[in-house]
Amino acid sequence: MKKLINNPRSVVAESLEGFGQAHHDLVEIHLDPDYVLRRGLPVEGKVGLVSGGGSGHEPLHSGYVGRGMLTAAVPGAVFTSPTPDQILPAIVKSDSGAGVLLIVKNYTGDVLNFETAAELAGVEGIDVRTVVVNDDVAVEDSTYTAGRRGVAGTVLLERIAGGAADRGDDLGKVAEIAERVNANVRSMGVALAPCTVPHAGEPSFTLAENEIEMGVGIHGEPGRHRLEMTNADSITDQLMEPVLSDLGIASGDRVLLFVNGMGGTPLSELYIVYRRAARILEERGARVERSLVGNYITALEMQGASVTVLRLDDELTDLWDSPVNTPALRWGV
Amino acid sequence: MKKLINNPRSVVAESLEGFGQAHHDLVEIHLDPDYVLRRGLPVEGKVGLVSGGGSGHEPLHSGYVGRGMLTAAVPGAVFTSPTPDQILPAIVKSDSGAGVLLIVKNYTGDVLNFETAAELAGVEGIDVRTVVVNDDVAVEDSTYTAGRRGVAGTVLLERIAGGAADRGDDLGKVAEIAERVNANVRSMGVALAPCTVPHAGEPSFTLAENEIEMGVGIHGEPGRHRLEMTNADSITDQLMEPVLSDLGIASGDRVLLFVNGMGGTPLSELYIVYRRAARILEERGARVERSLVGNYITALEMQGASVTVLRLDDELTDLWDSPVNTPALRWGV
Repeated sequence: MKKLINNPRSVVAESLEGFGQAHHDLVEIHLDPDYVLRRGLPVEGKVGLVSGGGSGHEPLHSGYVGRGMLTAAVPGAVFTSPTPDQILPAIVKSDSGAGVLLIVKNYTGDVLNFETAAELAGVEGIDVRTVVVNDDVAVEDSTYTAGRRGVAGTVLLERIAGGAADRGDDLGKVAEIAERVNANVRSMGVALAPCTVPHAGEPSFTLAENEIEMGVGIHGEPGRHRLEMTNADSITDQLMEPVLSDLGIASGDRVLLFVNGMGGTPLSELYIVYRRAARILEERGARVERSLVGNYITALEMQGASVTVLRLDDELTDLWDSPVNTPALRWGV
Repeated sequence: MKKLINNPRSVVAESLEGFGQAHHDLVEIHLDPDYVLRRGLPVEGKVGLVSGGGSGHEPLHSGYVGRGMLTAAVPGAVFTSPTPDQILPAIVKSDSGAGVLLIVKNYTGDVLNFETAAELAGVEGIDVRTVVVNDDVAVEDSTYTAGRRGVAGTVLLERIAGGAADRGDDLGKVAEIAERVNANVRSMGVALAPCTVPHAGEPSFTLAENEIEMGVGIHGEPGRHRLEMTNADSITDQLMEPVLSDLGIASGDRVLLFVNGMGGTPLSELYIVYRRAARILEERGARVERSLVGNYITALEMQGASVTVLRLDDELTDLWDSPVNTPALRWGV
């Protein structure tokens, strides 16, 4: 596996450096410990939003730092949780006095390390709340998780909670909005080919030439089962069924449909998945009112995709549409 | 090679259908013949911009239809020029009376078919001008080309000429701006691993496990030479040298630096390339005033990247920054 890197050990730092240079109008990079801040902090009177997790899922989370989304992102090593000593300064610098919401994907290491950092921040007098995202319907408990994994729903949650913070909601309200998103969003993914963690040098799992992993996690963790490769419509059916059942999507529901690429799948294929997923929703009588299609939470160069459905209400829709100005999502400004 | 498709022959149509559904607020899809129109045409008093080419380079060109960029895009089969009977109705519907600029990447088939369509549009009384993009410094003449190929510079040209049309410039002025971009932009790419055209079913070329193709085209056409895999900084040096020499970048020049992914390379690696490319420019005394990093013109799931440098002046910078509202590029609205 060839990679455009210099040294497996310096991938995260060098990538962050380039990211900081390319987007210096929006973000400020801190190295050692590594974290990314929105430029121009503190934002007076506004709740701070801090997220983070292992690297390798770009543009998540650093690409979502900016107005209307995250105040700070804390990237760990590839597929490895950031440490409390990285997370703590990001929390401290994100606090303008209005408190900080931590957005944590449900992986054991992330939950633990954000919890420790939250306690330390509490000692420093910062009002901290945490929302744990667990939108992946594929499996209960997994390689790195007790309970469901947090996956693509995180992107939607960061956007919508960020919109709430930007309009001036207090910490309790921002946390309530975030919990509402988490309660109404479900995802499931599939892998066609694995990815290779730079310092491992070998694919994180193997699939036969005619095999796919249904319900895969964003680190290549096993899903529900492996099956023989089939066509896009059939794969989409198998992704959508558990998502819609679990969410209890009914006629008249308004939804956001998000088809995410894992990093190595052409955009054209994601739209083929979108086409089928939208049709399934239509047949259920649901209305697709917003959409997102592209590589928004990846697993390095993994080939595959996930579908995410978020049940919308008026407030969530307004917050989704509100101005956002980050390296990876931008509108209204 | 597994793909999220249903039938190799229906990839373009099904993908377009999904694209049209996901972005129905911005675009309108026509099938058979296939073309994509900006919603709400004609835009009175404004010059129309039409581009197109083989599919497989998504989001180019359909993803760039909307305010401040293209009026219409005409996708051919994968890596195959669109036909004049597809291009002609796209031109006709893009004309509000102010004329239409065709933006054509320099490939023999594209040039020929757009030329034929332009003649037919002329017969219908439409004022048509054409700009041929040829920013790839890797090779003179190539598999599908007489002269230099048109590659990633096309994205920048579509954005900037689209900005000129949006502010109300007449056809002559929009064409002059487009020519100015083409004269000041250069690119070069590298492939680490090939891509597979769906209806071919086999990789379009092969590379040994430790080999890369320097100067590769966006269809996997051969570049300058193959060399042994090396690190990101060394590869970036070899991409930047011919770009900067050809462009004659000197101290004090202001530039836009664009690092593009070919489809299968993680965003984190593109930022590692960006970091080095920005440093090289800095060492030459050039100022990187704008940047773009991501998968903007791809070759299906090819692993690789390209670097593009555009020499800016005040007018090009203002047009780059002006409002754009398309599925794949959006700001200021």
